[in-house]
Amino acid sequence: MSGEFDLISRIAARVSPRSDVVLGIGDDGAILRPPAGHELVIVTDTLNSGVHFPESTAAHDVGWKALAVNLSDLAAMGAIPAWCTLALSLPAPDDAWLDACIDGFLALAAQHGITLVGGDTTRGQLSLTVTACGFVAAGGALRRDAAKFDDDIWISGTLGDAALALQEVLQGKPCSDELRSRLDRPTPRCALGHALVGIARACIDVSDGVLQDLGHVCVASGVGVEVLLDALPASDALAAQVENAPRWRLQSSGDDYELCFTADPLQRDALVALSNSLGVRLTRIGRVVAGDGVHALDADGNEVRLQASGYEHFV
Amino acid sequence: MSGEFDLISRIAARVSPRSDVVLGIGDDGAILRPPAGHELVIVTDTLNSGVHFPESTAAHDVGWKALAVNLSDLAAMGAIPAWCTLALSLPAPDDAWLDACIDGFLALAAQHGITLVGGDTTRGQLSLTVTACGFVAAGGALRRDAAKFDDDIWISGTLGDAALALQEVLQGKPCSDELRSRLDRPTPRCALGHALVGIARACIDVSDGVLQDLGHVCVASGVGVEVLLDALPASDALAAQVENAPRWRLQSSGDDYELCFTADPLQRDALVALSNSLGVRLTRIGRVVAGDGVHALDADGNEVRLQASGYEHFV
Repeated sequence: MSGEFDLISRIAARVSPRSDVVLGIGDDGAILRPPAGHELVIVTDTLNSGVHFPESTAAHDVGWKALAVNLSDLAAMGAIPAWCTLALSLPAPDDAWLDACIDGFLALAAQHGITLVGGDTTRGQLSLTVTACGFVAAGGALRRDAAKFDDDIWISGTLGDAALALQEVLQGKPCSDELRSRLDRPTPRCALGHALVGIARACIDVSDGVLQDLGHVCVASGVGVEVLLDALPASDALAAQVENAPRWRLQSSGDDYELCFTADPLQRDALVALSNSLGVRLTRIGRVVAGDGVHALDADGNEVRLQASGYEHFV
Repeated sequence: MSGEFDLISRIAARVSPRSDVVLGIGDDGAILRPPAGHELVIVTDTLNSGVHFPESTAAHDVGWKALAVNLSDLAAMGAIPAWCTLALSLPAPDDAWLDACIDGFLALAAQHGITLVGGDTTRGQLSLTVTACGFVAAGGALRRDAAKFDDDIWISGTLGDAALALQEVLQGKPCSDELRSRLDRPTPRCALGHALVGIARACIDVSDGVLQDLGHVCVASGVGVEVLLDALPASDALAAQVENAPRWRLQSSGDDYELCFTADPLQRDALVALSNSLGVRLTRIGRVVAGDGVHALDADGNEVRLQASGYEHFV
């Protein structure tokens, strides 16, 4: 296995920097040229082996997912991705594993026009921390504190596939490639997030579970929300396998990298058009109400309490 | 112990943001306002328990050092610190430990006017990854590739105290508080780094050991360097305890957060004046030569090969 500095050189050789990267990988820091008239959005997320992904996850997918969860946070802010860093801790040197991990990372980076500009490689338990930067026009970022009474609540894509895949993996059951890919290679909704600037009010990604994450919107915006559990969008695979309460629990347990946002009901036509133009399913799942807290309702309008809804470390 | 979200709120409550922070801790990302006419410098470094600091290190000092090593990288680029994120993995919840760690982090942050704007808290082996942003006037950053033939080579402060402290800790020997503080609470040279813009040519921090780090300058700049081992500045504590070759080995083994830079010999007076005005010792330790590689010389001008000079992971 190569030493640390060979490794850094090998990664650097595979990166094609954007034109706003004055100096990328290989110095004490990267030098970057922010665009005029924009605000910088910074996000950071860590993935630890055995906590955020099963130890059996392919190296390629570990790299992909480490970037994807950060791109999802940029998307939730309405920001266009620009630059990122990768801090990688590895228990033991392994060139083949590393090459595959970087392959996955750079494959997703290329799709979103984001350049890896630096990082750190250290010895330790397998862990990846990515910090990603993006840009929004000044004042344009989508925030948690902007929801208003009577807004619709929308969600992109479908919910619960990753949780079902994880359940099957942990139980040693067979898991279809399609389902497993929803766990291992989530699709960050960057184009959607950017397009929502000027249309949506509050926006959040639902990586910790849609009900728990909506709770943050409620606190930040000083509102309550009603969510219709039957309206939570499910893939055909999930709908075929799991019904009602168990399905709702999977759909609100997190690891879904979809955007949940609120919008004035006057924006419904604009959002249907956006869904069609981007080819991303958008579903109305509830509305913003007076009061506080998240109220999850069944088909009869009765409030449902789901056990262990959402992911929180140290609880 | 508090849950993850309580913890985040408690940290957020203790941060007083700079005026260019539009939105700090608590959303999917931070929103920041870069200054016009400047380039952004981004650095990132991870500290893993037992690898980058002894497991006995006080929580306050772990927080301090995690930020210090990143500020040192910003200093080496000549950048003024602005914003940072902290990704923290903890094996088990511990409010008292966390409060002390954040105390140390924020104490150093306040000294340097850098705001903690976001982060991530996860379960895992104790590990801290900081990403820090700073600014330099466009084109002003100090890079590794700017050394020129016949430049002087300078170093700030003294070298080897951290290595001596670590040796004493690992051998279970008593270690004075003063020496131990050089290991646990390094002083990033931010004011010096920024003042060197326009005076120094190449600059680097010597966190991996002065000889190894100068090797990176040689490769990037296409030059060689001669270093006079007797000239390496030592604290009184180190000079009193360790002589010659063993001392040189400690002085080039890393974990020193000093700046090593090259400068035209015409800048000697300016650098003496800068040393006096900042109260930071600056020592000439060698010069840039034709050829390549780092040549470490003893008092008789003979080249010395030091064993295990500098720190590299996976070697």
